[in-house]
Amino acid sequence: MQVGFIGVGVMGGPMILNLLKKGHEVTIFARHPEKASVQEVLQAGVRQAPSPRALAMASEIVITMVANSPDVEEVVAGPQGIFEGARKGLIIIDMSTIAPSVTRKLHEQASERGLHFLDAPVSGGSQGAINGTLSIMVGGEQNIFERARPVLAAMGKEENIFYVGPSGAGEVVKIVNNMLVGTISASIAEAFVLGVKAGADTDTMAKIIGVSTGASWQLANQFPMRAFNGSFKPGFMTDLLHKDLGLALDLAAENQATVAMTSIARQLYELSRASGHGRDDYTALMQALEQLAGVEVRSKQ
Amino acid sequence: MQVGFIGVGVMGGPMILNLLKKGHEVTIFARHPEKASVQEVLQAGVRQAPSPRALAMASEIVITMVANSPDVEEVVAGPQGIFEGARKGLIIIDMSTIAPSVTRKLHEQASERGLHFLDAPVSGGSQGAINGTLSIMVGGEQNIFERARPVLAAMGKEENIFYVGPSGAGEVVKIVNNMLVGTISASIAEAFVLGVKAGADTDTMAKIIGVSTGASWQLANQFPMRAFNGSFKPGFMTDLLHKDLGLALDLAAENQATVAMTSIARQLYELSRASGHGRDDYTALMQALEQLAGVEVRSKQ
Amino acid sequence: MQVGFIGVGVMGGPMILNLLKKGHEVTIFARHPEKASVQEVLQAGVRQAPSPRALAMASEIVITMVANSPDVEEVVAGPQGIFEGARKGLIIIDMSTIAPSVTRKLHEQASERGLHFLDAPVSGGSQGAINGTLSIMVGGEQNIFERARPVLAAMGKEENIFYVGPSGAGEVVKIVNNMLVGTISASIAEAFVLGVKAGADTDTMAKIIGVSTGASWQLANQFPMRAFNGSFKPGFMTDLLHKDLGLALDLAAENQATVAMTSIARQLYELSRASGHGRDDYTALMQALEQLAGVEVRSKQ
Amino acid sequence: MQVGFIGVGVMGGPMILNLLKKGHEVTIFARHPEKASVQEVLQAGVRQAPSPRALAMASEIVITMVANSPDVEEVVAGPQGIFEGARKGLIIIDMSTIAPSVTRKLHEQASERGLHFLDAPVSGGSQGAINGTLSIMVGGEQNIFERARPVLAAMGKEENIFYVGPSGAGEVVKIVNNMLVGTISASIAEAFVLGVKAGADTDTMAKIIGVSTGASWQLANQFPMRAFNGSFKPGFMTDLLHKDLGLALDLAAENQATVAMTSIARQLYELSRASGHGRDDYTALMQALEQLAGVEVRSKQ
Repeated sequence: MQVGFIGVGVMGGPMILNLLKKGHEVTIFARHPEKASVQEVLQAGVRQAPSPRALAMASEIVITMVANSPDVEEVVAGPQGIFEGARKGLIIIDMSTIAPSVTRKLHEQASERGLHFLDAPVSGGSQGAINGTLSIMVGGEQNIFERARPVLAAMGKEENIFYVGPSGAGEVVKIVNNMLVGTISASIAEAFVLGVKAGADTDTMAKIIGVSTGASWQLANQFPMRAFNGSFKPGFMTDLLHKDLGLALDLAAENQATVAMTSIARQLYELSRASGHGRDDYTALMQALEQLAGVEVRSKQ
Repeated sequence: MQVGFIGVGVMGGPMILNLLKKGHEVTIFARHPEKASVQEVLQAGVRQAPSPRALAMASEIVITMVANSPDVEEVVAGPQGIFEGARKGLIIIDMSTIAPSVTRKLHEQASERGLHFLDAPVSGGSQGAINGTLSIMVGGEQNIFERARPVLAAMGKEENIFYVGPSGAGEVVKIVNNMLVGTISASIAEAFVLGVKAGADTDTMAKIIGVSTGASWQLANQFPMRAFNGSFKPGFMTDLLHKDLGLALDLAAENQATVAMTSIARQLYELSRASGHGRDDYTALMQALEQLAGVEVRSKQ
Repeated sequence: MQVGFIGVGVMGGPMILNLLKKGHEVTIFARHPEKASVQEVLQAGVRQAPSPRALAMASEIVITMVANSPDVEEVVAGPQGIFEGARKGLIIIDMSTIAPSVTRKLHEQASERGLHFLDAPVSGGSQGAINGTLSIMVGGEQNIFERARPVLAAMGKEENIFYVGPSGAGEVVKIVNNMLVGTISASIAEAFVLGVKAGADTDTMAKIIGVSTGASWQLANQFPMRAFNGSFKPGFMTDLLHKDLGLALDLAAENQATVAMTSIARQLYELSRASGHGRDDYTALMQALEQLAGVEVRSKQ
Repeated sequence: MQVGFIGVGVMGGPMILNLLKKGHEVTIFARHPEKASVQEVLQAGVRQAPSPRALAMASEIVITMVANSPDVEEVVAGPQGIFEGARKGLIIIDMSTIAPSVTRKLHEQASERGLHFLDAPVSGGSQGAINGTLSIMVGGEQNIFERARPVLAAMGKEENIFYVGPSGAGEVVKIVNNMLVGTISASIAEAFVLGVKAGADTDTMAKIIGVSTGASWQLANQFPMRAFNGSFKPGFMTDLLHKDLGLALDLAAENQATVAMTSIARQLYELSRASGHGRDDYTALMQALEQLAGVEVRSKQ
């Protein structure tokens, strides 16, 4: 298929390589063509378009994977945006994590123009993007989802590509997932710092809690690979998780739902950012707490 | 083996039945012999002692499974306590969840009397107690742990019986686990209430997040069995989790460690208790939040 | 002076009446001319302009007192906005509480057009607006502030009209003040609910703490007039304080500053909104907490 | 009057000197007679008793001003305690800040022995102790309070000596006051750090907010004298405020009241303690937050 792709970063780069591997032809638009990730996909054989508008003209499906709501609005509905170049029936798949209210507005505008708009945010981090094993949660019309599925399957694990409901529902599920990423990780960070300071051993705690009622994906996977290992290279940057928790707070305010855990978790990541970890993996919060407590939480394995 | 058991409640009752099944002879001390759980084990063949002291005289191993630090201190070191009746070499196994500082004090007093004291708190809830599949985390001397292992194995899953370090370490690991139970469950509760209010579906969220980075034991097991199902029969009572989070805050204050997530989670369970859920399963917090938000988070399966 | 005024609500209405009293001629623009507050000022002798643009053409000073950042942007810089009708040298005074970053952007755009832009948010609530005793904190060029002072003095208490620094500084000071309003009020609410439940008397606590280290303007003024009195008519609506706390969180995220107290206070007002108090005085949070705790915190005086 | 005094520290020392000034004869019991504060009162003319029991035998009124609930229990009801030496009708005035439940228990035990027990915690810090201007909130029988008033009046400001209700009520009011001290101070700390980082000036903010709706005793008095001034000598130590907030959380748990603000404030003081400020004034929390944010909040006056 002719796939347009906007947003060639830590996530977008490897997603594009996987699209190529599965035989799709990919055109990209890159605001910063000099970036290493862009150069890498160009060498792998993608074409380059001078604008989202031009890219849309050459594509059957356009994927956007950018930083935030205003970025999506600009590349989709801006003056040189996708809407301006789209042929009737174009499927736009926004895989960014953004406000569901923005998703729904763009979906409506797309419908008015005879275009399709799916929200399809992902979970799994850069490793999932590289391995083509992302989880993808898709909101929008189900028949459009079915048509887009082969393209999504190039980037995600077949059994983890989910149709979740009408426009915006994909973003909601993603935000709820990332609320849990943020709160669970912050909880592990503070609990393990306390445990070690109170005399327990990191590996012992991880092993036992890993088979007990406090177990989580974060404890089984992210912490052993990053923080317990003293490695804070993302993965998923603190700044991005902080942004997603901001989306969660906005969504909660729209819906008058109290989210005290999420709210405090976000302040802890703020503390981690203030400690210089904005561009480190989000588990680096543990290091900020370690320094406050004067202990080290590390695996000896 | 001649096993004494003090604390015949929701947990202790089924633990005793499992000891009997494995061929141990059990003597109990019960402050409230009229309780149904006591009657049940008496009918199953346990003997009854008139005091912890008397029970200790008749036992090779004594297990305590009571509510809190003062209760353990009383049955172990009180005027009619275990210490008073213990023969040299008696192994006392405290399976309650209490302050590690109390554990260490009793361990020291036991040593001075030529007795052994293990802390061996459990995870797995009433279901684990019934099925004999508890996780058990044991602190104290390792050779004493090895001698006690056959008795522990009657109540817990062989591979989930862990020696974790010197006296008190078992309690620390347990408290760290329960901090995560409390924070993760409170996080799931608020996140799912928001998700449903924002238009997502309970089962869809549970399925997708269950295979994503927000996954946890709580989401996979406790919520589907209880809160998502509208069932709030414990399980593990809110009041008890609230107590354990109090132990965590005390441990944090002793160690000058900041535990903001735990601290807010405890306030949410306080809110749940104020809403009448003190004796319900801890996942009933979700119902308190549902009522505030005016939605229902239920599985349709 | 010829004063234009946009935003004729609970605050704007009485502010306009005070401008008239001091001899200023006032022209308003009202999106909803049928509102009671608009009718009241029309009867008092203000003129009406069909757009912010038209209003600007007829004014030496234009004051905006609207709900949020997008509203200010629209009436100032929108297609029919103040910028479009302004004569060189016009002084625009935005008295709304909005994001300092928006203030600074509009200030810059005004400068480019040869216009002046002050941020001059207020404190003192509807009562201060009625009595002409508002506190006003002004950011922008100091000489422009001096020229605007007579107009500000019609609405605020002479000694409480403050020049606080360059563009945006007024908003920052206002946001910091309202963070304290939000956190102190939430703290009073929870502390008094606990005090009464633990057996103390509302009036006794208020009297003693009022002369002790826990004293505050909120405890001395707002609570006796509203919540302690069972009266929740605003005053200052929960929804507006909730909005201001949102501005504070955004400002904190921009500046990587941790604001845990503010963050939790906002979640408590969210809880109050979910309990139906969005349009009540912000001290109604106490009533939400009273209902959870099953007590009443009321003055008997 | 013959006054016994137990607890010669930062508070007790100057309180004793004020008792002497008003003509009372004072006997002390000091566990650490070598302490400077003890030496100072000895030189000022107090006598020394070898035990609380001996001190009680020589006194008409005994005042206790010690660190926490167990300390009060020991000096009052311990083996060498006040109860053992007390003549019928002795008035015991506990001016410590402790759990109201302990107060009530001791009050009951005193009554059974024909003794009187008042709880009379104070507010005003070391400065108030020195100047004899403490606020004193007294619980217990009102006629006993009247008899004790002249002694209290030597230490506190006449108009700030309050009878607040039955036994324990004094402690409740004190705890509520200190909840507000803790939450308001933590709120000022975070709000001013943000304000300065966002470009506002410390003195300007303090001046304006001091006459606005965010005003408080803390902002008007404690911060200018300590933190704004770069001076963190207590005053009132972080460790002690942290202890009082712990009493508040315990009282809340007893009463099933949600105290989220207090709970987070306590974690912030935990952070301050971990940063080395345990024995500094509680406003030193601001310095911990300043360091995280990379700014200084200081007065230039």
